[in-house]
This record gives sequence, structure tokens and C-alpha cells, in this order.
Amino acid sequence: MSVPANEKHGPRVVIVGAGFGGLTLAKGLAESTYDVTVIDRHNYYLFQPLLYQVATAALSPADIAAPIRAILRGQANTTVVLADVSGIDVVGKQVIVEDRRFPYDLLLLATGAQHAYFGHDDWAEFAPGLKTIDDATYLRRQILLAFERAEASSDAAERAQLLTLVIVGGGPTGVEMAGAIAELAKRALAADFRNIDPKSTRVVLLEGGPRLLPTFHPSLSEKAQRSLEDLGVEVRLGAMVTACSADAVAVGDERIETRTIMWAAGVKASPAARWLDVPTDRVGRVKVEPDLSVPGHPDIFVLGDTALVLGADGQPLPGVAPVAKQQGAYLAKLLVARTKGRTLPPFRYRDYGSLATIGRSHAVVDFGKVHLSGFVAWLLWSFAHIYFLIGFRRRAIVALHWAWSYITFQRGMRLITGSTGSRLKDDAGKEGEGARMRGVA
Amino acid sequence: MSVPANEKHGPRVVIVGAGFGGLTLAKGLAESTYDVTVIDRHNYYLFQPLLYQVATAALSPADIAAPIRAILRGQANTTVVLADVSGIDVVGKQVIVEDRRFPYDLLLLATGAQHAYFGHDDWAEFAPGLKTIDDATYLRRQILLAFERAEASSDAAERAQLLTLVIVGGGPTGVEMAGAIAELAKRALAADFRNIDPKSTRVVLLEGGPRLLPTFHPSLSEKAQRSLEDLGVEVRLGAMVTACSADAVAVGDERIETRTIMWAAGVKASPAARWLDVPTDRVGRVKVEPDLSVPGHPDIFVLGDTALVLGADGQPLPGVAPVAKQQGAYLAKLLVARTKGRTLPPFRYRDYGSLATIGRSHAVVDFGKVHLSGFVAWLLWSFAHIYFLIGFRRRAIVALHWAWSYITFQRGMRLITGSTGSRLKDDAGKEGEGARMRGVA
Repeated sequence: MSVPANEKHGPRVVIVGAGFGGLTLAKGLAESTYDVTVIDRHNYYLFQPLLYQVATAALSPADIAAPIRAILRGQANTTVVLADVSGIDVVGKQVIVEDRRFPYDLLLLATGAQHAYFGHDDWAEFAPGLKTIDDATYLRRQILLAFERAEASSDAAERAQLLTLVIVGGGPTGVEMAGAIAELAKRALAADFRNIDPKSTRVVLLEGGPRLLPTFHPSLSEKAQRSLEDLGVEVRLGAMVTACSADAVAVGDERIETRTIMWAAGVKASPAARWLDVPTDRVGRVKVEPDLSVPGHPDIFVLGDTALVLGADGQPLPGVAPVAKQQGAYLAKLLVARTKGRTLPPFRYRDYGSLATIGRSHAVVDFGKVHLSGFVAWLLWSFAHIYFLIGFRRRAIVALHWAWSYITFQRGMRLITGSTGSRLKDDAGKEGEGARMRGVA
Repeated sequence: MSVPANEKHGPRVVIVGAGFGGLTLAKGLAESTYDVTVIDRHNYYLFQPLLYQVATAALSPADIAAPIRAILRGQANTTVVLADVSGIDVVGKQVIVEDRRFPYDLLLLATGAQHAYFGHDDWAEFAPGLKTIDDATYLRRQILLAFERAEASSDAAERAQLLTLVIVGGGPTGVEMAGAIAELAKRALAADFRNIDPKSTRVVLLEGGPRLLPTFHPSLSEKAQRSLEDLGVEVRLGAMVTACSADAVAVGDERIETRTIMWAAGVKASPAARWLDVPTDRVGRVKVEPDLSVPGHPDIFVLGDTALVLGADGQPLPGVAPVAKQQGAYLAKLLVARTKGRTLPPFRYRDYGSLATIGRSHAVVDFGKVHLSGFVAWLLWSFAHIYFLIGFRRRAIVALHWAWSYITFQRGMRLITGSTGSRLKDDAGKEGEGARMRGVA
């Protein structure tokens, strides 16, 4: 494939999606001769692995997110666009955003994944997932309101229902959520109520398969389960969810009464394949060539959760950040090589291992040959996550929050904000109490 | 007035509103024999003087807010209730919350103030104010989206309209907002866009009276105005707003094209007086006795922004935090004294001075006889605000954010979240791009 140049600029590269893959790619093109446009529907890059900590009131959104514009500010060849892509004109070579068109010479789709409810899209209303900051603050609100409503309730059955929190899915997100919620209830909130005992909160983790963390070594799955059970989490394996509603989740014939269900069970790819009208696998991922280009479209590449790439073992690569980042780095190198008339061998993923944390001082780390668990693994997990956060300020603040939480067991971000899904009425423009005055204290 | 005791507990004290006044009062009753209930419609205490920093992306909500339950956790005699009070039954001595009733022996109303639009309640939609965290994140979203939309616009008039931000009201909130927005536009965002120049942003501060900061010494009003003008703010005095709409604000016959109007012009008291059906002044404040009790209701007290109390100069005390806090402390002492058969002299306000900050390193401080401005005043302002924040962690984090912002000119919290009022569609449950993956980086 040749790289066409337009008159004023270098060849136009359009990247859709500024997650781990898209942003790594954009940064890798900083010194290139390309004219780069990055389109995302959020104005922030999100460090998604820590999103569960926002949902459980341990971190603030801004601790794990940074404005895309600020990250790419220094790249003179790069333009950032906040927009919601609605389609691709592969013939006219344009990305379609409402009434605007972004022409491209090379198109890179890093559009990620979204929740999948196994064909039960109606469950989404009752079992929200965790992909964006708004998801996280919504879940935080739901969890904290469950305790508030239980405290206000004079009905024992309703209290028990409100104090039952169910997480569906035993992968890393589900395991981390379950541990964080158990600690929130049994530690941070323990002394804060008068009519209920938050320690009696029932946290249920439902996993359809035979073990937690199925991509980890079985010994670590067992350790993770034991750590969760030590925190008081009820781990249910082989538990297939058959229904979700506003007041219960069904597992086979059993009905678990709850008002709070969190979905961490399945994802499907973004609609990129539909935009391109190309073949996908079962979860909507685009089957790409060894160089991540789309068959029949040498000017279009797909990376991250939306790409189906087979690993050395013949299995599809998992939808995790390291895969997306390595693909982003690979494509940046490939594109730069092409401007110099060179090319690169096919993409190859290097697996440096997997980590998942369980509560305050436990984690499991799977380096393939080496398996770690417990406090040392947790320290490793902490350093890895702080290291990969964007920017010095965020690292310092997160480290400070964690140190404080570690020492005090407290959660500082326990704010019930927004209004979606609340029985308390919307605040906006409404009269009411709550002394909030102006002036200096 | 005698203090009746019920059988099991001490006399029942119900405090409505956990702002500066209500919370100070509740904490003052920690060691008392009263059975205390604190009702607020938010689960957090808010350090409202710094709310404009959340709206301008300098701080996160959790940096200036703390869960009321956590603050009062250690007080065994105190129960916290998250609820929206709808009325008072003064005969049956009960606070009414939907279908619940909270009986009281003594009732303390610290229900604050809300925005007033001089009889034009329809302006509220176009000119939101700044009283709650949701107000602040909404405003932050609006301000940041104005720049994004301007960047996306190909129409010069529309761009100019989007890059005009208007603040109505030249009191401390308006002055601080104007300074913070000017710095956001001209410093933090300066290099982040490609099609617009944020430095060309027009920030207009409209004040109806003859000078800014009317409660400060005139020399400080002038200094504040000069500092704002140095930051590029257009200060308009004697500017009475005659209309607000989605695309303009009218000042007399002049029409200023804008999509972003912030209201900092007027407040009225909470509806406490209506609950009690007692006389008020023009802005709805309850005329109270020298001990802050309500005439004809010796068992009900009103404090803070909702109370009309005359100062030594015969003028009503301003609706600022120090007044509310001192009244809360006074009432706590009065109530405790009564349990010992004693009473106290009338409430007297001690004015320790006023502070307002203008941008990154200027402030004005009015100690009555001593007036300070410039960098020294700003340092004083910074220390005062950090000192009065609740909790060590918040102080450390805010200090760190400020130090970082001071050195780098950056704003870390520039996240566009939520969906209210956006032209970008709601995220929830919707397909789209934006690579956000699960796993460790």
C-alpha cells in the first residue's frame, strides 16, 4: 500500500477512540509526518482498570482520567475532536459525525468494547456495567443509596433486600468490585448507621464458570476466592443468571432479592465492524490481517477490544489494556516505517502477566511461570497501577488517597450526586433545605 | 422554656440542614444529654466557598465535600437522616418527610438559601447558579463544552457567541468565578485547541451596583476590579440584566450573545418560614428573637441564611459561612446551658473579616481596619480555606492540587461528565466508540 500525501499536510491519519490503544498510537505518531486527527466521544482518557475504585468511593473521577487535549497538546501535527462517530464512508474515505465529515488516508479504529447481556438487553437497566465515569458515579450513587434506604426502612425484608449487593461475573472487574464493596460495607461504613449494621451486608459474586478469574492460573483462582470469602463475600460458581429485575436476580430457579446488581459478565465489541460491513466473530470483533489491517481495506486498521487477533496459542487475545497498548505501539511504528518505504513483521503480543486485587492488601499476580498472591502481590499491583497512570499529579494524589485509606480504612469519595435512578427528587432548581452559604469560613 | 425529657432518651433535638450552621450546632451537642437527629437532603457536608473551583475544573467534588455520617460517626447521641423535608407540624411537633415523621422537643432550622432571579424564575434554566455539587459539575460541563463546540464550529459568529462567558453578580462568588474562568481559558486551555484561540475568550462580569464586592471596603473593590481586568475580564458596573435566554443575556437595551450564563446575583432564604407560617423579610428570612428562637415558637430556632438577625450596625447579618457557624456554636452552647438550668445572653456576631480571591495569586482581604490585597492576601486566603476544610486528607489533597496548579497553570479536573443539557447524546446503554478496556496496563 502506498501512502498518499495531500498538498498542505502529510497523509491524513484518523484515529477513532482515545483509550489505551488509540492514545498509544496517537502518541507514537507525534514525530511523524502524518496529519493526525483523534476522535473520541469523551473529552477524557480513562484509566479504566481503576474505575471500580470510583464506583466504590475510593477515588475521584479526575484521579483516573485526564483530558485528551491536554495529553496531546504538545503534538503540533495532532488535532483532537470530541464527537460521536456514526459511520464510515469507506468509498469516499470519510469518517461520519452527524453533519461533519473527516476525510482520511489511513483510518485506525480503536473503539473498544461495551457490555453484552447475552441477548437480554433489557437487563441493562437493572444491572448496569462499568465502562465510563458516568457508569462509575451512577453505581456509586446506587450502592450508597442502598445503605441510606435500608437505614430509613422499617421493614426487615426490605432492609435485607437493600443490603444484598450482587455482582455478576467473576473476572477481574467482578472480583475487584466484590472485594471493594465488601470492604466499603464492612469497614468504611461500619460505624456510620444507627438502624442497620452495614457489616451484615450480603455481597454475592456470581460466576457462570467453574472458577473465578478464568484467565489466571487455577491456584490463583482459588486464592482469590479464599481472599474474597475472608472478606465475607459469598462466591457462587457455576451460577448462571437467568433473569434480572428491579428487585431480584435469578440464578436458575433461585431468586436472590436485591436492589443492586452490577454487571461484569460479558462484553461485545464496538460497532466498528458494522460501520465497515466486514465479517466478525461471535462478539462482534473484526477479523484482521497479521498487520491489523482489515481484509479488503488496506487503508483501515482495527486494534484493541474491537480486533480479533489470535495469539501464539491459537486463541483470541483477551480484551485487556496491554493488548491494546501493544497494538497501538505496533501500528505507530508500522505507519512511521511506511513513510520511510519500509514495513514491519506481523504484530506479536508479549504477555507480561495479569494482576487482580482483592480488597485492601491482597492481590493475585500471574506471570505465567511465577504466581504471586497476598500482600507482596498487592504491593506490585499498587505500584503497577500508579506507574501507568497518566501524569505526575494523578500518581501523587492516588498514592496519597491509597495511603490514607490503607491507614484509616475510610473512603473519602462517598458522595451521592446526580439524580438518575434516585427516589430522592432532583435538586436542580428546586427549593429545599440544606444550609449552604456563601462567604469565607 | 422548660426542656421536656422523654423516657428513654434525653430531649429530642432535630436539626434540619447540615451546612456550616447545622453541622457546627450538631457537633456542639456531641457531649450533651440531647438525642440529636440531623436531617439533610444531601449525604455530604459541602465546603461551599470553594465550589467555584469545582465548576472551573481546579478541584474534584470529593476534595471539598465529606459524608455527614462520617463526620458525626463518633457522636453516639446523633442520628443522621438523608431526606427531603417537606413541612413542619408545629402543633404535633413533628418534622414531615414524605411518609415519615420525626418528633422533636426542640427544632433547629439551618436550611440555607437558594438562588433568586428577581421574579424571573424562567431565567434559572439559562443562568444556573452554584449551590450544590451537581450545580458545579453541570457548570463545569457547560463551560468545557462551550470550548469544544466553538472548536467544532465553522461559523465565526457562533464561535464568538460560544467563547463569550457571562457571570451575573459581582459579589465574592461572581468575582471568584470570573477570575477562575479567565485563567482557565487564557492559561490552562490556551494551547489545547487548533481551530480556536481560547485566549480570545470574552469573560464578562455584570454587576448591577456601582462597584464589585459591595460588602468590602471600596478600595478593595477597586483592586479586585483591576486584578480582574488584568486577567482580561470585562467588568461592567451598573449593568442590570433584563433578560436571559439560551443564546444571549440582555443588559438594558444591549444584547450580549452567549451560550453560557452563570448566576451569582441573588439569593433568597429556604422555605423554612413557609413551613412555619411566620413573618419574613423581603428575601424570605425568618425574623428571629435575640436568642434565634422564632417569635411565638420558643421550641423552634432558625440560624444561618434563613434567619434575619440584625448586627450591631442595625443592618441584617450577611448570608456567609462565619455567621452561620457562630450561630450554630451559640445555639449549641445555649441548649447545653439549658440542660443545666442556665441561659445565655443574646447572640452577637463577631466579624473577623472577609476574603475573596481573584485568579492564581491575587486576593482581597477586609479585616475592617486593615485591608490587604495581592499575593499576601492570596496566601492568607489559601491558608484560611485549607484550614477550614474538614479532615486532614482533604487539606493535604487540596494543598497538593493548588501547588500543582500554581506551578503548571493546569487544571486537572477538566472532565465532561453527565449528560444534562448536552448536545452530545447520553452515553448510558448506548453503542459507540472510545476504547475502554479491562485489564492491567
